[in-house]
Order: sequence, then structure tokens, then C-alpha cells
Amino acid sequence: MEKVNLKDKFSTFEEPWVPKIVGQLNGQYVKVVKFLGEYVWHHHENEDELFMVLKGRIKILLRDETIELNEGEFLIVSCGVEHKPVALEIAHVLLFEPVSTRNTGNVDHKYTIEPEDLKTL
Amino acid sequence: MEKVNLKDKFSTFEEPWVPKIVGQLNGQYVKVVKFLGEYVWHHHENEDELFMVLKGRIKILLRDETIELNEGEFLIVSCGVEHKPVALEIAHVLLFEPVSTRNTGNVDHKYTIEPEDLKTL
Repeated sequence: MEKVNLKDKFSTFEEPWVPKIVGQLNGQYVKVVKFLGEYVWHHHENEDELFMVLKGRIKILLRDETIELNEGEFLIVSCGVEHKPVALEIAHVLLFEPVSTRNTGNVDHKYTIEPEDLKTL
Repeated sequence: MEKVNLKDKFSTFEEPWVPKIVGQLNGQYVKVVKFLGEYVWHHHENEDELFMVLKGRIKILLRDETIELNEGEFLIVSCGVEHKPVALEIAHVLLFEPVSTRNTGNVDHKYTIEPEDLKTL
């Protein structure tokens, strides 16, 4: 059985907005992703999504409020809720979500990666 | 929508081995728990379990090896695999697991808490 060191995983890539799989359990993926700049407004029809900040700070824009997340904080965005992640400086983020989750949800965008094309670190 | 600050949650309780719910998504709970001393050998018949160390260090004893986890590391223990968590000093641990997960799995023990009796912070 192999443990996962999150710093080690983050050190292996640079490109922002490309989630990588670092674990799988109970039909869910654990992913790591670097945030930098503005993502795209989207929602997930059937999947709740957890964002946990491991380094830096991010904002999750919602249509009626903005949530700022610092290191050691997480937010669960329920399915159906439109959101737009933003980071002014590079931030390290852990995601926990169903294996079916498409990164840009209902939106086709240059950042879109189909779930079957995700890489495992 | 409410974010969760993990340090704040850990500051609200002392008792080891009593998991508290801090989030729910896709049929899974996010829990926080303090480890101190030796837990009980057990397995979960149907649930994979993720242990992530946020502070301190722990060991997960398996029947054929021991995995040491430091801050920023996690381990996924697959369903059916016997394990025994241990911590020589107090450690802060995050758990991701299905809402059906019973903390001591197949074993009845003084630490057993039925899933419906878990507290939410």
C-alpha cells in the first residue's frame, strides 16, 4: 500500500487548471490542481465538489457571494451551483469529487479535460 | 455557503479517537479526529477510508507492513483490509469516507460510535 505525499505530487507539474488524480476511493477521486488566474463559470449537474487549499489562497466566486479560502480551509460547492475559481497568485488545491466529474462541468472551454483523459500522478 | 477552517475545528475538542463531521458530499463525510495512543485492529467491509495527516505523525499498522504518515501525507486503506492506527503524540487527522462508515468497522470496542451518533462541528 502506497502513501501519498502531497508536496511531492505538486512538485511534479506546473501547468495551472489541469487536475491530476492522486487517489481513488468509493467512486471518488482525490485530485491535485494548481490555480492561477481566472477559471470559467460552470456548474456540475450531479456532483458536489470539495476545494481544499494546501498552499496560497483562492477565491470561489458564486453568483451571490465570493468565498475566500486560505491554507487549511475548504469549501464544498453543491451540485447545480454555478461557481468560478480565481487565484491571483499560484495556489495548491486538493479536490475531492466523484470520478464522473468533468472539470469545466456543463461548459466547453479551453480548460476542459474529459474525465477519462485525466492523468494519474 | 460556509467554508470550513480546519484548525478552528480541531481547536474545539480534545478527546482522541472521536471523529467529528465537518462536511458531507456525494454520500461521503469529511471528518476530523485526533489520534493519541493505540486504536483497535479492525476493517471496513464495504468502505475504503482515507487518512490525511494535518498535524503530527501517525502510523497505520497493516498485517504485513506499517505505513508512517507525516504532515501533508495521506493513505487510502481499501475495504476489507485490516488496519490499526497508532500515534505516539497527539496528531490531527482528516478522514474521507462514506457516511455509512462505522469507526471501528467490524469490531465492537469502547471506541465504537455508530454512524448515526457522530457529531457535526
